[in-house]
Amino acid sequence: MSKEQLLEKLHALDRECNLLEKAAAVLRWDQETCLPELGVEGRAEQLALLEGIHHEKFTAPGTGRLLEELGSVSENPGGDEKLAPPERDFLKVLRRAYDREVRLPPDFVAGAARAEGLSQAAWVQARKNNDFAAFLPHLEKMIDFSRRRSLYWGYSENPYDGLLDIYEPGMPAAAIEAVFGPLKDHLNGLLKKITARPQVDASFLDKEFDTGAQALFSRELLKRLGFDTRRGRLDLSAHPFTTTLGADDIRITTRYILKDPLSSIFSTIHEAGHAFYEMGFPREIRGGCLADGASMGIHESQSRFWENVIGRSRPFWQGLFPVLCGYFPKELRGVQTDDFYRALNQVKPSLIRIEADEVSYSLHIILRFELERDIFSGRLAPADLPAAWRTRMKETLGVEPETDAEGVLQDIHWSQGSFGYFPSYALGNLYGLQIFEKMCADIPGFEEDISKGDFGTIRQWLSDTIYIWGKRLYPPELLKKITGQSLKSEPFLNYIEEKYADIYEF
Amino acid sequence: MSKEQLLEKLHALDRECNLLEKAAAVLRWDQETCLPELGVEGRAEQLALLEGIHHEKFTAPGTGRLLEELGSVSENPGGDEKLAPPERDFLKVLRRAYDREVRLPPDFVAGAARAEGLSQAAWVQARKNNDFAAFLPHLEKMIDFSRRRSLYWGYSENPYDGLLDIYEPGMPAAAIEAVFGPLKDHLNGLLKKITARPQVDASFLDKEFDTGAQALFSRELLKRLGFDTRRGRLDLSAHPFTTTLGADDIRITTRYILKDPLSSIFSTIHEAGHAFYEMGFPREIRGGCLADGASMGIHESQSRFWENVIGRSRPFWQGLFPVLCGYFPKELRGVQTDDFYRALNQVKPSLIRIEADEVSYSLHIILRFELERDIFSGRLAPADLPAAWRTRMKETLGVEPETDAEGVLQDIHWSQGSFGYFPSYALGNLYGLQIFEKMCADIPGFEEDISKGDFGTIRQWLSDTIYIWGKRLYPPELLKKITGQSLKSEPFLNYIEEKYADIYEF
Repeated sequence: MSKEQLLEKLHALDRECNLLEKAAAVLRWDQETCLPELGVEGRAEQLALLEGIHHEKFTAPGTGRLLEELGSVSENPGGDEKLAPPERDFLKVLRRAYDREVRLPPDFVAGAARAEGLSQAAWVQARKNNDFAAFLPHLEKMIDFSRRRSLYWGYSENPYDGLLDIYEPGMPAAAIEAVFGPLKDHLNGLLKKITARPQVDASFLDKEFDTGAQALFSRELLKRLGFDTRRGRLDLSAHPFTTTLGADDIRITTRYILKDPLSSIFSTIHEAGHAFYEMGFPREIRGGCLADGASMGIHESQSRFWENVIGRSRPFWQGLFPVLCGYFPKELRGVQTDDFYRALNQVKPSLIRIEADEVSYSLHIILRFELERDIFSGRLAPADLPAAWRTRMKETLGVEPETDAEGVLQDIHWSQGSFGYFPSYALGNLYGLQIFEKMCADIPGFEEDISKGDFGTIRQWLSDTIYIWGKRLYPPELLKKITGQSLKSEPFLNYIEEKYADIYEF
Repeated sequence: MSKEQLLEKLHALDRECNLLEKAAAVLRWDQETCLPELGVEGRAEQLALLEGIHHEKFTAPGTGRLLEELGSVSENPGGDEKLAPPERDFLKVLRRAYDREVRLPPDFVAGAARAEGLSQAAWVQARKNNDFAAFLPHLEKMIDFSRRRSLYWGYSENPYDGLLDIYEPGMPAAAIEAVFGPLKDHLNGLLKKITARPQVDASFLDKEFDTGAQALFSRELLKRLGFDTRRGRLDLSAHPFTTTLGADDIRITTRYILKDPLSSIFSTIHEAGHAFYEMGFPREIRGGCLADGASMGIHESQSRFWENVIGRSRPFWQGLFPVLCGYFPKELRGVQTDDFYRALNQVKPSLIRIEADEVSYSLHIILRFELERDIFSGRLAPADLPAAWRTRMKETLGVEPETDAEGVLQDIHWSQGSFGYFPSYALGNLYGLQIFEKMCADIPGFEEDISKGDFGTIRQWLSDTIYIWGKRLYPPELLKKITGQSLKSEPFLNYIEEKYADIYEF
């Protein structure tokens, strides 16, 4: 067979595996948005079967042979150097996925999928009923599956590193600690400065905002941001998320809280940021393994860039606040744009990560990172998580949840076995601002664009600079290509220092 | 291997195939209720893949071997006569499905699934835009796939018989004609009698009924009927349908028409009737090939029984009309229960099948049956369908659609390649009333139950008498078991004659 024929066979296999992943994604999306209460077990069985079939197809001996015939081996995943760069990237990404998948026994894969489905449903109920004990056996199972997965991959000394590597290739716990340590100190310092200042007045938000009107505003927001509803949709779920069910079927969710209109606004913008990335992969890589984010950190850089750098900026609300007032004329009567801008940037350490301000947000993440690290090193038992959560929240942010629902049960991630994901959010903040520096240089008028509600130039820039690469480049390569540099915290810290010095006048 | 081991292997295979069918059902449900416009192609690919995998698993040589080792061959599908009756029924149903599936080439199966996905989406658009020409190429493809499917099954002389057999085993076109011929004459006679009488006044329904309130009433209705929302849900779609996504995940859809409140009410009740059947299969057959209706005719007997015999009855609205008035106090002010009962039973030949009265309904079906028969015999070209539709509507019901959207494009069935399905509705009317005679004898107080909104006894009776059998019995066997007789039209004709003689006073 010629190289072209071998590649075509491998692409066909990749497309087929991708279709199976997307079919499973439909089942998962449905589970979180629609599935009737008692349908959970059947759904878990369906997912276990699909995951099993995917595993069998992807790890069939033919896959390894095709990769090898194209020169792709674990030590040289890109294969034959005479291949065109996109094909070398394709081989690199596929080989990496294959090397991991082939080490997992089929029973393990199906068992994990089944357990995840049940665990996630149990989490929804446990959070609703504030019942950690009911969730604990599932959580233990998820930890066990994750640990075994990492052991299969060869991370016998530090299983947590294997999990981190899923989301941020090449960033083991030690590397993340090296970033998070100084970040934590810096943010704590900034928090102290801010809390020493007179507080921002956000009391006018302390009332009920009709959730129907919130829902209408979320749709208006998406329209203005340029979210293409022919290629996606917005729904409700217990925890906001984005999922790709097909190249032209990218869905986001949000939730509406009667006494907190900001929650749905910023989760909608956040998820839209993820969706833009997924919608922006170039046609030639769609439907295959390259149609994915460079890493979860880079993915979160996109969502958090839209949520914070754009969504919590002054120019953004200069354009949009009058529109919001149209949805809540009574509730927002007499409020000025700048009052609103300051209120939504109120820094106030609080309990819920996804509703946290930009300064304390990363501290929520670091807390989770440290808990995960301690769980996988064996220093912390799952049953002790609620207590550890409360203690560390008190230490880190000075607040303590009264219920586990507002504490250890608040996030969906662990229920799905996604340990090692959380650092992506804080890394995303850093990536996002580092990339933003370059964007500012390339689009001098971006602030004016934002205030006019014109996001076309920004989206085009992101598309040409980031989305276009899909998963072809590792995060450090992508960052280098865009900024010429490697990961650093300064752009984020400068941005946040400057923004909050202005708001809190120090 | 022992018989028990062989059976267990076959059950495991059946459960796995069933899970794949349900996963595909999730994707189809999503396509009709949620899928973004541009997601259609990706979805068609996903479905083609799942159907292909299902086909491959089900028709693998091992399946045939297992069946044979258990003595199940085409001539004796139930296998070894020493097996327990439920196992013999299991073998019979599985063998029948296997014999059909194994004759279809894998490419054909995947190609048909892909084409169906695209065709159905094209139909939604074509109906919306009243553009038959845009749908025609898809329709032709669906007809071609159906014809080839029937040819693969060996129906070379009358391909339509092979399609009919999918939905009503053992009822070829000639047998259906023998039933439909006299039925048509009888209904035409009844129609003449009715139209000679002063017409029922339904003018108070000729106004707008807020669709939001309609949606709330549909939910109220389901609650009162006893629809368990922990095991199912109600959604919106272009064409109402019921689908089973799992033993505890049975979903129905409806649609709300501003100027026709009856449409959503009766489609909701109709689909609930299907759902009750699907929810009622006994635990021991769930998740396998026996967890299905005896035939589509029997399935429609359940939906049309709830819709008409219960839903369009006087006692039903004696209980429920005050509730409806609570949702539409202004619109229904001054209307008496009996006015409403008569209005909703107004006999008025009209364009849309699913909104037709009980007298003309079966004539809509017979028209479709005749068109399908003529298409598959080659007497009618697909391109000539719109004209043929208009002509025959004029002949049959004296009305003629102004648009194809209200004519040949109104039903979803052909877009999904479901040729041969329509007769089930009219057969369902017959089965339903024949079964109802027995129910009346068994539950003397059923009318009082209905007027009190107590459907428990009726549902229990249906459960013990029909649902409990799942697909174990062929329709004639089931009918015999329940009524001691074979299919006959008299119970339906007596019921309809008596009911409308009362309403139209002749």
